Amino acid sequence: MKLNCDMGEAFGAWKMGLDDKIMPFIDQANIACGFHASDPLTMAKTVALAKQHNVTIGAHPAYPDLVGFGRRNMDIAPAELKAIIQYQIGALKGLCESQNTQVDYVKPHGALYNTMMADFTVLDTVMQAVSELDATLPLMVMAVPEAPEIKAMAKKYGLRVWFEAFSDRLYTDEGRLTPRKEPNAVHASFDLIEKQVEQLCETGTLTTASGKRLAIHADTICVHGDGAHAVDAVTRIRTLVDHLMLNQPSNTSAN
Amino acid sequence: MKLNCDMGEAFGAWKMGLDDKIMPFIDQANIACGFHASDPLTMAKTVALAKQHNVTIGAHPAYPDLVGFGRRNMDIAPAELKAIIQYQIGALKGLCESQNTQVDYVKPHGALYNTMMADFTVLDTVMQAVSELDATLPLMVMAVPEAPEIKAMAKKYGLRVWFEAFSDRLYTDEGRLTPRKEPNAVHASFDLIEKQVEQLCETGTLTTASGKRLAIHADTICVHGDGAHAVDAVTRIRTLVDHLMLNQPSNTSAN
Amino acid sequence: MKLNCDMGEAFGAWKMGLDDKIMPFIDQANIACGFHASDPLTMAKTVALAKQHNVTIGAHPAYPDLVGFGRRNMDIAPAELKAIIQYQIGALKGLCESQNTQVDYVKPHGALYNTMMADFTVLDTVMQAVSELDATLPLMVMAVPEAPEIKAMAKKYGLRVWFEAFSDRLYTDEGRLTPRKEPNAVHASFDLIEKQVEQLCETGTLTTASGKRLAIHADTICVHGDGAHAVDAVTRIRTLVDHLMLNQPSNTSAN
Amino acid sequence: MKLNCDMGEAFGAWKMGLDDKIMPFIDQANIACGFHASDPLTMAKTVALAKQHNVTIGAHPAYPDLVGFGRRNMDIAPAELKAIIQYQIGALKGLCESQNTQVDYVKPHGALYNTMMADFTVLDTVMQAVSELDATLPLMVMAVPEAPEIKAMAKKYGLRVWFEAFSDRLYTDEGRLTPRKEPNAVHASFDLIEKQVEQLCETGTLTTASGKRLAIHADTICVHGDGAHAVDAVTRIRTLVDHLMLNQPSNTSAN
Repeated sequence: MKLNCDMGEAFGAWKMGLDDKIMPFIDQANIACGFHASDPLTMAKTVALAKQHNVTIGAHPAYPDLVGFGRRNMDIAPAELKAIIQYQIGALKGLCESQNTQVDYVKPHGALYNTMMADFTVLDTVMQAVSELDATLPLMVMAVPEAPEIKAMAKKYGLRVWFEAFSDRLYTDEGRLTPRKEPNAVHASFDLIEKQVEQLCETGTLTTASGKRLAIHADTICVHGDGAHAVDAVTRIRTLVDHLMLNQPSNTSAN
Repeated sequence: MKLNCDMGEAFGAWKMGLDDKIMPFIDQANIACGFHASDPLTMAKTVALAKQHNVTIGAHPAYPDLVGFGRRNMDIAPAELKAIIQYQIGALKGLCESQNTQVDYVKPHGALYNTMMADFTVLDTVMQAVSELDATLPLMVMAVPEAPEIKAMAKKYGLRVWFEAFSDRLYTDEGRLTPRKEPNAVHASFDLIEKQVEQLCETGTLTTASGKRLAIHADTICVHGDGAHAVDAVTRIRTLVDHLMLNQPSNTSAN
Repeated sequence: MKLNCDMGEAFGAWKMGLDDKIMPFIDQANIACGFHASDPLTMAKTVALAKQHNVTIGAHPAYPDLVGFGRRNMDIAPAELKAIIQYQIGALKGLCESQNTQVDYVKPHGALYNTMMADFTVLDTVMQAVSELDATLPLMVMAVPEAPEIKAMAKKYGLRVWFEAFSDRLYTDEGRLTPRKEPNAVHASFDLIEKQVEQLCETGTLTTASGKRLAIHADTICVHGDGAHAVDAVTRIRTLVDHLMLNQPSNTSAN
Repeated sequence: MKLNCDMGEAFGAWKMGLDDKIMPFIDQANIACGFHASDPLTMAKTVALAKQHNVTIGAHPAYPDLVGFGRRNMDIAPAELKAIIQYQIGALKGLCESQNTQVDYVKPHGALYNTMMADFTVLDTVMQAVSELDATLPLMVMAVPEAPEIKAMAKKYGLRVWFEAFSDRLYTDEGRLTPRKEPNAVHASFDLIEKQVEQLCETGTLTTASGKRLAIHADTICVHGDGAHAVDAVTRIRTLVDHLMLNQPSNTSAN
């Protein structure tokens, strides 16, 4: 089980996130590519920081909407969406290769992520975009009950998929995140977060809002790099996951 | 002697240049990378067009200034300028690799081009940017009398340089372009253009505004892809250059 | 019956539309405000051109999407949409007042126009935006059968509404434009355009795709300022409308 | 003596400055207009905040350079610069008028401010821009020894000028700010700031780096709204200025 976090979301003079503080505790940095956040210099600095901490670098492409932080849906036709994604991954690759490192996976951001998880024709376009550029780059998507369908789609393109789960969000029975406007959508206490992470790591399941047990295979857990308690939460999840992994019998076998 | 031309300078719904008409007659397409012109979909289409005509693809990075078409000077610090260039080359590489083709050289655009030719500390930053990303990518610069100095700078970074000359512009005694506001700055007749191209190809010299003969080694001639007479001019220069090259003794030796 | 046309849709070095040629024949210029097209200098020049031809100036606000020309839907929350509209109208007012002229109406552009005509909660936000800024500015909307409902909404905000019809588009029975992808969506011959304009001016009706007669009150007809036949079409519609207006009995009464 | 501060410099999801905390203590809010910072919704909120605290609203136009925060010089031709300024002032006016308030002055930002103070042909363009739009809007500029020349320039356009001084910066003998890279450029202690404010208010002079006494007439002091000690510094300067003004004999006369 890995930890991934959105990184490099500053923009010009504007700061966002505690990248310096969080980078030492994560495995995978989803680096913004200039369309929802970041700019070339910020990207270069974030690549350097990830490299320094041996953190795997992922491209974090988004809709072209800086002012909306890539969180607003945009009607973008498939051919243009493909080009937008390939442009962003390429740009980050350019900055990585300039520092003798590389992009190792792709995780779409914000509204693009939500749309592709809700509409698999969009997911198909994303997969096509990534596979055309470099089919060795895994695509990180949300761990949902439809995982087998997603894997079958990816196989068509020769792509691998990494599934991510959320530690601090309450899931619906459909394996989706309870919308933030609803009560209890975000786990208020670290106990609840800890319980969810433990259950995920040890049993590969989540308990939904209705109390149902849902089988969810996750390769990585998404953590948050901004907010008052971000550093505290990330270090605690890191410690917990390391502890759980150490004690997992399957850990001794080859993966 | 090659012909190079700026390509892919449309932006969204706005057209520019006669790419479809010009591409068949050139050897090297300088493709805009989204900072002064173009957008991901336009870039993807331009890459496809270049590939279809077996035209070598060059990245054409610029200052971030769409509304000014990259023609206005901007005070950008070296670290940021490097990142801006690497981002743009990388983005075009991403779109090229998605179509199983590649970026083969780099030619800076507009104010960035003019500034680096006037201030070699900027040229140094450009060279550093390109060499960090991929030192096998030649940098296309203006063919000027300081060519030996430029080659020495490039050698430091393990870079090759391609020198380009202009067929339709009157040169100063310093080997620079006569500013457009001065009379005769642009050759009004095709006879003058033809004469300049012939002289360049056959003798490696140019005749300046004062009548001085200037030794200029050029690898490629820059042609223009927009304007009423663009297609006519490019096809005539293409025919002329092909004719001159055929008759050049050195053409029989290995290059 | 007036003629309105989108104007000032160039952007930086990119041209669009035949503003110089079209402006003499129209009554109302919908001037782009920098969010889907145009830039401050283009806007200033377009204001000067409109003023020179005594053309009424309308603000033509849009979603913030230059690369998509404001034609793509964006999920923008009401408070932000209001601010976006007020910003754009204000910007054009600033340029008009600097030339001792004024903005006289507002017509939303592209996806914003389509969305407000399809979803009256968005139309309500647009009305609120305009009325807060200046309730004396009429809002130009599509002439549809729901005109009474729209007028009632506007009255709530103390706003006037101008209704526009399209001369070259086939209407559905619901009084909407037949989508462009369908055959006959755009009138291929000037005869059909002429017939539609005549019917609109003389009887206040349109004949729909199914042959149904639809009562449509229009204050203005939208004409197009780009394309090969734009100047020809606009001058012919201008001549026709002038002729029809002259012969209209109601024209003798005060308006 | 007034206090002015840059406000509304957030951008989309990115925060900047402590507007809520600072607004109660200042007289004049220089509100960013979307070219170097801010966006329509941020501007609308900042206008509401200024109105709530009875703070005078100034437009804070800048070069079009979000990623550089308007701090980088750009070669922009006079006609375009004028349009850029009028567009931005107009946009803020649109948002102000929508809240029944108004723009009361103009203060250029960043590189535009520095350039106009160093090159009076640029200052002339700025004055022309403001006076064409609304000659009743005072222009806020740096209080420098050339004040009489600036006033004469402004008079030509029927404009008023407000002069601002800096409380925390060491001045050169030419009445300019010591560059930040030099030691002592920024007053390290509040004692020095306090002394500079007192001297400005009581004697209309500043003591320069070389110890020279310079006559500087200032109408307003620029304070800073971000940084760890911003709120503390602003409240102390506020208290000091209020105290000094109360005790000023001239304060008893009508202004």
